[in-house]
Amino acid sequence: MKALVYHGPGKKAWEEVPDPQIQQPTDVIVRVDTTTICGTDLHILKGDVPAVAEGRILGHEGVGTVTEIGPAVSTIEVGDRVLISCICSCGSCSYCHQGLYAHCLADEGASGIGWILGHLIDGTQAEYVRVPFGDNSLYKLPAGVSDEAAVMLSDILPTGFEIGVRYGRVKPGDVVAVVGAGPVGLAAIMTASLYGAARIIALDLDANRLDKAKAFGATDAVNNGDEDWIDQVKAMTDGFGVDVAIEAVGIPETFDACTKIVRPGGSVANVGVHGAPVELAMQDLWIMDISITTGLVSTNTTPMLLKLVAQDKLAAASFATHRFTFEQVLDAYDTFGRAAETKALKVVIKR
Amino acid sequence: MKALVYHGPGKKAWEEVPDPQIQQPTDVIVRVDTTTICGTDLHILKGDVPAVAEGRILGHEGVGTVTEIGPAVSTIEVGDRVLISCICSCGSCSYCHQGLYAHCLADEGASGIGWILGHLIDGTQAEYVRVPFGDNSLYKLPAGVSDEAAVMLSDILPTGFEIGVRYGRVKPGDVVAVVGAGPVGLAAIMTASLYGAARIIALDLDANRLDKAKAFGATDAVNNGDEDWIDQVKAMTDGFGVDVAIEAVGIPETFDACTKIVRPGGSVANVGVHGAPVELAMQDLWIMDISITTGLVSTNTTPMLLKLVAQDKLAAASFATHRFTFEQVLDAYDTFGRAAETKALKVVIKR
Amino acid sequence: MKALVYHGPGKKAWEEVPDPQIQQPTDVIVRVDTTTICGTDLHILKGDVPAVAEGRILGHEGVGTVTEIGPAVSTIEVGDRVLISCICSCGSCSYCHQGLYAHCLADEGASGIGWILGHLIDGTQAEYVRVPFGDNSLYKLPAGVSDEAAVMLSDILPTGFEIGVRYGRVKPGDVVAVVGAGPVGLAAIMTASLYGAARIIALDLDANRLDKAKAFGATDAVNNGDEDWIDQVKAMTDGFGVDVAIEAVGIPETFDACTKIVRPGGSVANVGVHGAPVELAMQDLWIMDISITTGLVSTNTTPMLLKLVAQDKLAAASFATHRFTFEQVLDAYDTFGRAAETKALKVVIKR
Amino acid sequence: MKALVYHGPGKKAWEEVPDPQIQQPTDVIVRVDTTTICGTDLHILKGDVPAVAEGRILGHEGVGTVTEIGPAVSTIEVGDRVLISCICSCGSCSYCHQGLYAHCLADEGASGIGWILGHLIDGTQAEYVRVPFGDNSLYKLPAGVSDEAAVMLSDILPTGFEIGVRYGRVKPGDVVAVVGAGPVGLAAIMTASLYGAARIIALDLDANRLDKAKAFGATDAVNNGDEDWIDQVKAMTDGFGVDVAIEAVGIPETFDACTKIVRPGGSVANVGVHGAPVELAMQDLWIMDISITTGLVSTNTTPMLLKLVAQDKLAAASFATHRFTFEQVLDAYDTFGRAAETKALKVVIKR
Repeated sequence: MKALVYHGPGKKAWEEVPDPQIQQPTDVIVRVDTTTICGTDLHILKGDVPAVAEGRILGHEGVGTVTEIGPAVSTIEVGDRVLISCICSCGSCSYCHQGLYAHCLADEGASGIGWILGHLIDGTQAEYVRVPFGDNSLYKLPAGVSDEAAVMLSDILPTGFEIGVRYGRVKPGDVVAVVGAGPVGLAAIMTASLYGAARIIALDLDANRLDKAKAFGATDAVNNGDEDWIDQVKAMTDGFGVDVAIEAVGIPETFDACTKIVRPGGSVANVGVHGAPVELAMQDLWIMDISITTGLVSTNTTPMLLKLVAQDKLAAASFATHRFTFEQVLDAYDTFGRAAETKALKVVIKR
Repeated sequence: MKALVYHGPGKKAWEEVPDPQIQQPTDVIVRVDTTTICGTDLHILKGDVPAVAEGRILGHEGVGTVTEIGPAVSTIEVGDRVLISCICSCGSCSYCHQGLYAHCLADEGASGIGWILGHLIDGTQAEYVRVPFGDNSLYKLPAGVSDEAAVMLSDILPTGFEIGVRYGRVKPGDVVAVVGAGPVGLAAIMTASLYGAARIIALDLDANRLDKAKAFGATDAVNNGDEDWIDQVKAMTDGFGVDVAIEAVGIPETFDACTKIVRPGGSVANVGVHGAPVELAMQDLWIMDISITTGLVSTNTTPMLLKLVAQDKLAAASFATHRFTFEQVLDAYDTFGRAAETKALKVVIKR
Repeated sequence: MKALVYHGPGKKAWEEVPDPQIQQPTDVIVRVDTTTICGTDLHILKGDVPAVAEGRILGHEGVGTVTEIGPAVSTIEVGDRVLISCICSCGSCSYCHQGLYAHCLADEGASGIGWILGHLIDGTQAEYVRVPFGDNSLYKLPAGVSDEAAVMLSDILPTGFEIGVRYGRVKPGDVVAVVGAGPVGLAAIMTASLYGAARIIALDLDANRLDKAKAFGATDAVNNGDEDWIDQVKAMTDGFGVDVAIEAVGIPETFDACTKIVRPGGSVANVGVHGAPVELAMQDLWIMDISITTGLVSTNTTPMLLKLVAQDKLAAASFATHRFTFEQVLDAYDTFGRAAETKALKVVIKR
Repeated sequence: MKALVYHGPGKKAWEEVPDPQIQQPTDVIVRVDTTTICGTDLHILKGDVPAVAEGRILGHEGVGTVTEIGPAVSTIEVGDRVLISCICSCGSCSYCHQGLYAHCLADEGASGIGWILGHLIDGTQAEYVRVPFGDNSLYKLPAGVSDEAAVMLSDILPTGFEIGVRYGRVKPGDVVAVVGAGPVGLAAIMTASLYGAARIIALDLDANRLDKAKAFGATDAVNNGDEDWIDQVKAMTDGFGVDVAIEAVGIPETFDACTKIVRPGGSVANVGVHGAPVELAMQDLWIMDISITTGLVSTNTTPMLLKLVAQDKLAAASFATHRFTFEQVLDAYDTFGRAAETKALKVVIKR
């Protein structure tokens, strides 16, 4: 088959590789019909994720059709149209029993489990992919859910919802601020209304992204480069700050911004991937009754989000801004890599 | 002043009565600008609520302007535009500390507290009303919220939301059935989306009300007079039944209907006012991991619902179908009393 | 091997049967070291559970040693000392993902899953047993946990805790009443302190069982045959009733008793297995803000309870009142069947 | 009357001052029968809390007898034996409605509300004290609760429980670490078992305090000055770290220690009062699904803790190590100020 192979920092190729094989009785082989590219794939290509070995097929998002199942697979059948979760999990360990699939304790060879596709084992930017623990790592698609909508549930929508909205404990009537209006921030904005947020404030330095945020459900937009941005945000509340501040960038400045606008009793939910420590003003925060949360998506809300998409309650497909074929995957990377310029949110790559 | 006075079963009059006076340091006098009629008022007039004495001014819903405050009132001022909650509460007893204002333990004369307006003390269908414990029983109206919208938050919207949606533990992705599409059922339907319900099924015997239900947010409608109504409902789920069934009628048949369509692990939330026992099929239900809840509204979500109305996230005013002046209050009762014919949901009565 | 076989109502024998075999790749064969008898086994023997076919090996509780695993078993190894849960579950279906293992949707032949051992497939009152979905249905025993303690976690302790204490939402400071001081009622009494109950009132008609209840953690005992039993209970509260009433008998009278002593805002948790409908006084209860819950144990708290036993925080072994060998299993049944006379709580049957 | 008056950094005197008077209709005057000293009082005396004006009477903990009530006080009567909470609150503002009394929005003169006693208004180290909003700020003592036990509920026990145990989301079976075994840390240790903690590990640099911790309920003790202290803690878990780490010191080192021993999915609850920022290793923590919480006690659990004391379920009085009369209050300060040497936990000062 053909697949996108990582050959060390800065190097990738769409090339012929061996077809994947069933290795464990719980494995499933999926023919990939639709995949996409994540910001993490760009980090890997820069060499920022040393655990990714040369020769690795990239990609952890996808929708496809089951072509083969291991003898212990009980809920998935050949021919099923499935969503591939970015998280693989055994379903039987203590973390899986809590629904924290990202921290699954099962062993996949010497590799560990959780986020392994396109990381520690071969991924979804390929014609076929082996998915470990298929019963727990794949979700059958309900009728009427398009590939383009479904592929947004491999990672981005559950990430915004689980790590931003749920960990942030958004509740009806809340004022929610989302700092960073990139794809994951927009996913948090889109799903904040699932818990009845009254007001959703998008914050970003880029006016175009703030416009986009409004199309995804933000009621207000603030440029956090403005000198008085904190006052602007607080004026949209009762003066005490927002109920929930969601960090969707991953740098100290935006994390700090969240702690400055959260009200006493409120929450800061960190979604961004950080590469450096942050300074936490505990001399001010100790008295504030706030919670600060972190997390990697477990995709335990994926079946629920699929129901909402099937009922037209979640416009998942609206993240798709550009479309490519598998043969055009390098063009897709180019478009996604220049997102500021191309205004790409998610690029859809189809068979 | 003028007020609507109850003179025993079947008898009422819009007549001159003495103005209300401050009796306790925590009292507030409100000039009523807008009021409405509740189904409970009709029950009182039939003589079904013997606690209501002859001579009582009826009404427990209203919006008005503060004209006088007792010396211990600290958060409300003369001139404030306020929502009058159907529940009065002291804020300091053990039930108030839990937010269960309906069960407030404070004494108001010999009368008790909670639902007392238009019941144990004079009510809101009058030019002026005395509201005990004004700091806890009144809510200042945010700018931009109309009287017509606000008066729906005195009772009906918090009832549907607190006792139906919240006690029913509606969560994102749920299939919710509401049995009975009268005003309170519609309030549950309208607010179920505050917790992200995927599908909201209205059940009623009346085709007109089912149409109305769709305008209020129901995604589906089933006539529970149909022989196969249970199958129709289950076909809208994965076959196991609904996540949440909300009873909004108050008779054994509709309560029973809820227990027949709820899935294992689901919830039945009773909102209806019952006058007789129901038979509970514990031989079938003991194994089902369900919860059944009951309750009288505490209006602890009223400030939150006001925020949603102020943000145009809740179309509260759409319950208002007919409008009258205070002088036309008997016509208003007539229209509301023949709701099946007049299609009245809530009648709005203005100064 | 030898096993206790059901031969129709009233008939059972300890006899030679074929050894169990691995049938599915997820199966595990366990050599049973310790088992016990449940009240349900007595019901089966009376013919009350028609789903149990003649020839079935009884028993759904046990502790043993793994002798063989299917090729898809990943967390359990030959030689592991394991607790056999009364509930088998796949870990991958929508109910398992919620932790509602009792309602597992997986198919085990034509039989369904959940409670199947000693019911729809052969059980644990045998020298060996086949356990489906071993990764999810078995729990490795921590060092220092005795067989006698562990076997109480197959069914009885998680039942009292999950269906009584947790569904009843016991919280620190609560007054909890447990109606019925048999083994399951005692399990609720013992585990109510895990959520900090201030007062635990045992109710029973039998003075001996009330004494026993105090040894298991009840702070107070009331004979609900006394004419003024309701007043006695309410006098142990602030006069409004108990926070949580746990039904642990399974008849209309005791269910009714619970609804009579619960306070406004409280909970009734039904643990008893009912064979007939109950009458629910909704004319009184609709206004009370109570929840009534039902359920079959899912054993999702078993690993947690094992941790408490390992730390000597839960005296699980104190349920064991009589001890037998496998060859004496008929005597064990006799002793357990005459519990009122023998004062048996749980009989322990060892290899 | 006589009172302990602050006269600027390092200066205090037990001297004659005017008796307190009712100022607001919601005020209550309490004759102080028992009071105690808090670590915060020592900070004030050092000059670390500039908001405390010279001439202020210190103290925010106490038990006493009501001598006078304002005309709007409805639940407290003259002669009542009451616990004085360290937090005063109006009961009617949006924060009070959430139970976050520490953030009460009411105005007390120009002073604000929440923690005001012995801070912004005169406090409890006096023969009499004026308590604003008496209905919400005082708790009637149940029969059988001694002054010495009750005074520990003014601040220390609710602080450890609300900000440590509850914000840390301790649940049955958890392994809980408490870093810092001073009075507040011991309060967290004592109350962790109200949520069924399986193992409670005390960490401190002082061997004496670790011994004390065991008397208060710690199951294990680790000296976090040991080189391998992290390994020691992790060895007491399944190797992944503790479920909940409670910070009870207030310096960067101990906060950092908590983030190093918490497991994926766990909680860090900060109770300590910090004077400087901390560095948060977000490059490691972003992926860990943890929550970090902060807070000032709201004392919303005080009535519940009183119930537990009244039932002998909480040995509150065991914090009292030294006893003094009012006339000996300067000796009491001396003893408490040299706690490392005197081994004082709480000093009790009685009329």
